[in-house]
Amino acid sequence: MKHHELSDGSITTPAGFSAAGIATGLKHSGAPDLALLVSDAPAEAAGAFTTNQFAAAPVIYDRAQLAAGTPVRAIVVNSGNANACTGSQGLADVRKTAEHAAHVLGIPPGSVLISSTGRIGIPLPLPTLLNGIEKAAAALSPEGGEAAAQAIMTTDTRPKSLAVHLEVDGQTITIGGMAKGAGMIAPRLRTAPPSATMLAYLTTDAATDRTFLHDCLKLALDSSFNRITVDGDTSTNDTVIALANGRKQNQRLDADHPAAGAFQQAFTHVMSRLAREIVLDAEGITRFVELCVAGAATDAEARHCAETIATSPLCKTAWFGGDPNWGRILAAAGRAGVAVNADAVTLDYQGVPIVRDGMDAGTPENEQSRAIDRRELRIDLNLGVGKGTFTVWTCDLSYEYVKINAEYHT
Amino acid sequence: MKHHELSDGSITTPAGFSAAGIATGLKHSGAPDLALLVSDAPAEAAGAFTTNQFAAAPVIYDRAQLAAGTPVRAIVVNSGNANACTGSQGLADVRKTAEHAAHVLGIPPGSVLISSTGRIGIPLPLPTLLNGIEKAAAALSPEGGEAAAQAIMTTDTRPKSLAVHLEVDGQTITIGGMAKGAGMIAPRLRTAPPSATMLAYLTTDAATDRTFLHDCLKLALDSSFNRITVDGDTSTNDTVIALANGRKQNQRLDADHPAAGAFQQAFTHVMSRLAREIVLDAEGITRFVELCVAGAATDAEARHCAETIATSPLCKTAWFGGDPNWGRILAAAGRAGVAVNADAVTLDYQGVPIVRDGMDAGTPENEQSRAIDRRELRIDLNLGVGKGTFTVWTCDLSYEYVKINAEYHT
Repeated sequence: MKHHELSDGSITTPAGFSAAGIATGLKHSGAPDLALLVSDAPAEAAGAFTTNQFAAAPVIYDRAQLAAGTPVRAIVVNSGNANACTGSQGLADVRKTAEHAAHVLGIPPGSVLISSTGRIGIPLPLPTLLNGIEKAAAALSPEGGEAAAQAIMTTDTRPKSLAVHLEVDGQTITIGGMAKGAGMIAPRLRTAPPSATMLAYLTTDAATDRTFLHDCLKLALDSSFNRITVDGDTSTNDTVIALANGRKQNQRLDADHPAAGAFQQAFTHVMSRLAREIVLDAEGITRFVELCVAGAATDAEARHCAETIATSPLCKTAWFGGDPNWGRILAAAGRAGVAVNADAVTLDYQGVPIVRDGMDAGTPENEQSRAIDRRELRIDLNLGVGKGTFTVWTCDLSYEYVKINAEYHT
Repeated sequence: MKHHELSDGSITTPAGFSAAGIATGLKHSGAPDLALLVSDAPAEAAGAFTTNQFAAAPVIYDRAQLAAGTPVRAIVVNSGNANACTGSQGLADVRKTAEHAAHVLGIPPGSVLISSTGRIGIPLPLPTLLNGIEKAAAALSPEGGEAAAQAIMTTDTRPKSLAVHLEVDGQTITIGGMAKGAGMIAPRLRTAPPSATMLAYLTTDAATDRTFLHDCLKLALDSSFNRITVDGDTSTNDTVIALANGRKQNQRLDADHPAAGAFQQAFTHVMSRLAREIVLDAEGITRFVELCVAGAATDAEARHCAETIATSPLCKTAWFGGDPNWGRILAAAGRAGVAVNADAVTLDYQGVPIVRDGMDAGTPENEQSRAIDRRELRIDLNLGVGKGTFTVWTCDLSYEYVKINAEYHT
């Protein structure tokens, strides 16, 4: 590992980025609901967006902007309204928001990206948002990363930010990131990515080739945002965007650069940490579960099996109850539609043998209970068929999850 | 409709069937846990069983028995232990149970079927079960249907029985049925069906051809047990078995019999009613939802979309909260991986327009709330693509569901 993590990094730790997070009134609670991120130099950009077919207006807009390849100067993110299922009016509102932000910031109209999260199907209160952009522009600061991470929260209980340093061409370059999550979390992102929606932003002051930045993002997805699931519900608004503004004037990073591997590793670390933080702050979480499926016919089958278990209400409520009831895990694997060798399956809780040869391993139930009675639990399931593996990060299903989602009205 | 429903029918309403339901001690609570159903004449039999790859020992046994085509005289059903993931010992225990029941009842050893429901992975306490069979045999009665329906319950709050009459060849024939459900309910049954498992038994005194009985069962599945989902978790033990003992000496029913259609319809009615009763008594239910998806590319896509919505924690908790939040339904449809026409989608709650052209239909939120504030709710979603349709019966996700499944230890 050639990078190291800063104690209090954020998206504004890399040189040349400023940010703000303010309250505009989009949230009835009066909490911060508008984040603005600005790069003082044109930045190469890469993105990945939800695969939900009801992609929100800002997702449709950003995809088109990134496809055009225009460098990016700013990102506007509002919480409190998803601007999804809002038709042509929703798209027009995104365009007006981008134009207004460009005008206020004095940057080219095509250099602004937009993200939204909140309730689906409510028209955006555009005047409120446009006024907010002026207020946010006035509040921009190179120390604004934490305020921005606050403003993108919905049911999150805490902001999620970090930054890492690494050496490239003798220079110390920085990669920063922020994310929000909490519910409606099962991102299925495609590069060119997830009402609580998953949103994540990465910044770096390194100079990178656009294709390389895109490849870094794509490669990191499967070991970060695409391996997390809170509730199996993929949002209409999931978004990951990375900006590289080249302020460090290293030799432009591409696949052939000697530091390409180290950069990729650092980039993946930031995405992976943010993804894990999203699950650790999931709606109503009392237990974080790292579920590793091995011995599947293929990696794809391992993934499908892991996701089936991770979204099984019976497995998730057993985890909440601290119940070692392994039959629920095997039953979920058995309905996943993947190849299993019923007489060879093994299961371990935190390294303690629970199932061997498809049957109870003989570990006394009080030892099974002790093995799972932890805030962070690792479960290993081997299907006994082949060499396919996949790991998901998920959580339990608690009274609090039900409460948040039965009573959530923005 | 050529059949009519009896006010207090059960599996022993058809002539020639007796049953018992007793407590053997398999359940720590001391509640009834063993049901015995006996036909006084050899019965044609048809069955459908879980597609879970960890099929329980009794499922493996019954499948083989039905494939052999031997007429059936008796069914032994225990609750309190699933005999699943119990290896070769589990299979040997099923064989011994069937042999013992045949011996006690004085019937051929191959004429007994076995079902189990309860916790997975615990060896069957065989002596307890075998003693129970003797006690149950002594309690057999032509009025025993209701006691049997009691004994197969796990987290069910009430027994589920019914019977219908219809005329065949001038005779009044009867079809009876019983079922249990409550949780781990998403049967995916194949003819040749969920720890709370779905179990259902049908009896008739009609004479039927075996193939015809099998076809009746198979045809009825998609409008009954295969359209219900409580939690998306398909059990290792799901079973539906139908017995036709021919006591009414009608001309043997087959596809060419003039009453074939009427019998099929009556048979489907019994299965459909039992399936609906299972959802109405689902773990923690406060709201029953009939979700009708239309306008899909194919029936299979309509089904996949309907099941995705019916198992979405965000949709289910919104229903619990009485929250009209339709964005969650569209978001679930949009991640289902089926074709949707985002600009043409329509959604109705109990006939009230909620979404038109993929956007808010303009119905005031208090009217939306009033539309869904019912114990039984109908939701219509049209994807705007083709002619595929499918209807599922499901329910909300409440605190009580979490409680039952976080604290459930048999």
